[in-house]
Amino acid sequence: MKTAIGVDFGTLSGRASIVDVATGNEIASHVHEYANGVIDEHLPGSSTRLEPDWALQDPNDYLEVFKNAIPAVLKASGVSPDDVIGIGIDFTACTMLPTKADGTPLCFLPEYRQRPHAWVKLWKHHAAQPEANRLNAVARQMGFGDILDRYGGKISSEWFFPKAWQILDEDPDIYAAADRLIEAADWVVWQLTGIETRNSCTAGYKAMWSKENGFPPGAFFKALDPGLEDIVSEKMKTEILPLGMKAGGLTVEAAAWTGLNPGTSVAVANVDAHVAVPAASVTESGKMVMIMGTSICHMVIGESEQVVPGMCGVVMGGILPDKPGFEAGQSCVGDHFQWFTENCVPDDYFTTASQKGISIHQLLEEKAGLLKPGESGLLALDWWNGNRSVLVDVDLTGMLLGMTLLTKPEEIYRSLIEATAYGTRVIIETFNDHHVPVRELIATGGLPDKNKLLMQIYADVTGLPIYIPAATQIGALGSAMHGAVAAGSTAGGYDSILDASRHMAHLRDESYHPIPEHKQIYDRLFHEYRQLHDYFGRGQNDVMKRLKEIKAEVFAHA
Amino acid sequence: MKTAIGVDFGTLSGRASIVDVATGNEIASHVHEYANGVIDEHLPGSSTRLEPDWALQDPNDYLEVFKNAIPAVLKASGVSPDDVIGIGIDFTACTMLPTKADGTPLCFLPEYRQRPHAWVKLWKHHAAQPEANRLNAVARQMGFGDILDRYGGKISSEWFFPKAWQILDEDPDIYAAADRLIEAADWVVWQLTGIETRNSCTAGYKAMWSKENGFPPGAFFKALDPGLEDIVSEKMKTEILPLGMKAGGLTVEAAAWTGLNPGTSVAVANVDAHVAVPAASVTESGKMVMIMGTSICHMVIGESEQVVPGMCGVVMGGILPDKPGFEAGQSCVGDHFQWFTENCVPDDYFTTASQKGISIHQLLEEKAGLLKPGESGLLALDWWNGNRSVLVDVDLTGMLLGMTLLTKPEEIYRSLIEATAYGTRVIIETFNDHHVPVRELIATGGLPDKNKLLMQIYADVTGLPIYIPAATQIGALGSAMHGAVAAGSTAGGYDSILDASRHMAHLRDESYHPIPEHKQIYDRLFHEYRQLHDYFGRGQNDVMKRLKEIKAEVFAHA
Repeated sequence: MKTAIGVDFGTLSGRASIVDVATGNEIASHVHEYANGVIDEHLPGSSTRLEPDWALQDPNDYLEVFKNAIPAVLKASGVSPDDVIGIGIDFTACTMLPTKADGTPLCFLPEYRQRPHAWVKLWKHHAAQPEANRLNAVARQMGFGDILDRYGGKISSEWFFPKAWQILDEDPDIYAAADRLIEAADWVVWQLTGIETRNSCTAGYKAMWSKENGFPPGAFFKALDPGLEDIVSEKMKTEILPLGMKAGGLTVEAAAWTGLNPGTSVAVANVDAHVAVPAASVTESGKMVMIMGTSICHMVIGESEQVVPGMCGVVMGGILPDKPGFEAGQSCVGDHFQWFTENCVPDDYFTTASQKGISIHQLLEEKAGLLKPGESGLLALDWWNGNRSVLVDVDLTGMLLGMTLLTKPEEIYRSLIEATAYGTRVIIETFNDHHVPVRELIATGGLPDKNKLLMQIYADVTGLPIYIPAATQIGALGSAMHGAVAAGSTAGGYDSILDASRHMAHLRDESYHPIPEHKQIYDRLFHEYRQLHDYFGRGQNDVMKRLKEIKAEVFAHA
Repeated sequence: MKTAIGVDFGTLSGRASIVDVATGNEIASHVHEYANGVIDEHLPGSSTRLEPDWALQDPNDYLEVFKNAIPAVLKASGVSPDDVIGIGIDFTACTMLPTKADGTPLCFLPEYRQRPHAWVKLWKHHAAQPEANRLNAVARQMGFGDILDRYGGKISSEWFFPKAWQILDEDPDIYAAADRLIEAADWVVWQLTGIETRNSCTAGYKAMWSKENGFPPGAFFKALDPGLEDIVSEKMKTEILPLGMKAGGLTVEAAAWTGLNPGTSVAVANVDAHVAVPAASVTESGKMVMIMGTSICHMVIGESEQVVPGMCGVVMGGILPDKPGFEAGQSCVGDHFQWFTENCVPDDYFTTASQKGISIHQLLEEKAGLLKPGESGLLALDWWNGNRSVLVDVDLTGMLLGMTLLTKPEEIYRSLIEATAYGTRVIIETFNDHHVPVRELIATGGLPDKNKLLMQIYADVTGLPIYIPAATQIGALGSAMHGAVAAGSTAGGYDSILDASRHMAHLRDESYHPIPEHKQIYDRLFHEYRQLHDYFGRGQNDVMKRLKEIKAEVFAHA
């Protein structure tokens, strides 16, 4: 049996899975927690407090995943290293770090260890907002609006250049000492292979690169800051490799870390949400993969590169080779229900749940499941954490409407689920309106297994069937699939990710289909949602922003 | 010491208080619960289920209040019947019943005892909505819109003629057998004095009567239903007595029930909210009395009879003699906070409250009190139970906006309090805009003593000082004051309610004054409230009504 290993780097831990290349079946899996987790208070071994909105990581934690999780899955599976044909990785993004020319992270060097900017900036490091704002303004002024339009009109503070620029702004020594600025995804592949590569996924979605035009020109970076003019040529790479390509073979050193054979094929790096698409059996247009957890990532393969308003990004070859990959997002889904159960559910519900031996979420699902669409009379806007797609506005806030003195918690709970489903439908309609068809949904992530009511509501609201991938560790499977493609068919793998998907990715028999009577009611409710969405979200009444301004003033005076 | 007795008939019980006529000090008070309470499931001694929205009472329960509570206060106070100069009563309204010519309630007669329409229809009997709708339509068609405009544009289903018409519609035998149709307020006075009187307060606020034009003409009632044509001349009285007038003296029989002397002066009947005004020291224009409990009644004395949009009513002599009395209302205040604590407050808040030995309301008040105006970023519309004034629309529902994942229960709680304060400010501004000045507030009812934070927020939001009457049983005091006026100065009472108020009504030293910095923030938040109030409440977006329609359809199909 030929196998491949996928390593999925998350926010708090890394998971290695070893899978059968012929079937995609997982043979063993192991999670290794990062010793330093998310560094958001002070640097390891230091008492210097980090500023708010900072979120760093320790690159050594990533290496420890290779050193611990891969030997563990080899042991647990009993698979011989000779039968491991390839490795793939996927990572959170944009998660980036400064290194020396040989790949040594600056934070590994004693002289920089106390400097926050020497460490990895995690995806949710939000302290580069001033740089993001200036970058967006300059891009518009200089006529690069078409680049911004590929990203919903704005480059996020989470992305590569705002983070790089923050280093230059706040610690120019570190910026100067950084021979390379690199995505952690590409850095771990470098550590495995000894070869520095850059992948098209993070370059495209997080660093303004496109296959057609490459990175923005030096003049653009110079306009941001003269010190940034040569950032691409000096500290990055202009050669961007397609996904599924072999980055190199495992070095002797990395082979020793992992227990694998030197020379084992390593795939070009990838991103967690993106690698999930072929692992969810999606290799063509018309299907939307939803990775549903605290938030939702919506991934769609197109036929041609369209500008769809309010996307996180569109990148040619960003998900599958030679096809435009679209990413959209909802910033508050599972988080929404968690907030509700923590803040709005009364005592006796918890008592009932514990008497029944179920979780509070299960109890609410049970009670909300007894309600019919439209029965609560409630309607919510799902903006507790702002709106990512399609309004791209972090300053929007939540709204709930229709309450009476008879309104029950389960009715509010259901209306919050419905609101997130309406938010998904807005995204789907925006795709369809802009010539990127979405005709069926594939749902993965934590939520589909946790909440069947939610899945049925999504089917009813969107009017589309929803299928569920067989694999529960979809990121690790997707990475293993890319490892199998990096190895190629001659080594017992595959020559393309499409082939790999055909053999290794499977859907469950379980699926959700719209119930026509529900759909009919939800069409009317969605019409109401859409009106309020536009009223509060498109400038007719900016009350949410004014309330935030007042709140900020109150805090400033306190 | 001369004393007077006030009897305050509430929804579930009646209270008698005996007070010192010279000072208004309460000497003793006693509450008697109605044996049959609110009859909303089935008639006493019967298994026939009442339809939804019905709410009846048993008139015998009112007599039992006289027979139990008055002897109890006499005993407790040690006051001699010789020193009781007068009795006044106040009642819920419109609470009405059919009787024989001698005042015997039809429900006392065995032949009618099983007929729901033979019983008292309590103020919150809401089953006459079809009749109210038809009455309003006919009134507009026939050019009686000016009458409707005195009542916020609509006659409520709670009021006299819709209830009377429902009897005719649904049980014409009872209608025919009813020699009299009468407010319970007037009926109890009849039972005490043997004389049938009708008071200007209930006639004006609940039965479309005005001092200038009397009741609507027979042609109007004929247009509703030919059977109603002579309702006023046959079953009511056209002579309407002013408040504070003596209705008669206690009969020998009633003297025996109560332990008082035959011939003791009994005042013309009154309504709970209205009798509270002089008891709250208000005898002139410029002041608004707020009776704050589950809902708020807002009572204002004017100088001239103005049409103010969205009032519950304006009646010349309806509160004080010869002055126009205005009544407005908010339908969801204390109920709102109750709903919130029952449905939206998590487990650990109850645990904390019980550890601290305080109620959940007190805990929420404590936590919400730590917040500054504007700090929560939340804004609500206080329409959980529709909007009484100034929109007069029962189909409006609640709205809450501005939530984030950090929003806490106490922030929502505070925003609900603020929303009711904004609702009060809309009412005040509407009065002021229509030449009925409101320059200070007097707050009574249950809430002022329960929630000081709420009182301060009302002062801050309205920008007006709030004073609190000394008496806690304001209705009973007001009734006793009217009893003292019915007795007159020759008997040791007063010749006018103004005199009685001057001597018997007092304010506490405690008062609430707007804090300028809070007022400034609340002015901005109120501006936002007002915009959303008009957007959702005045037809720009009728989403609340459409959601209710959908809900009704869902129920109809179930």
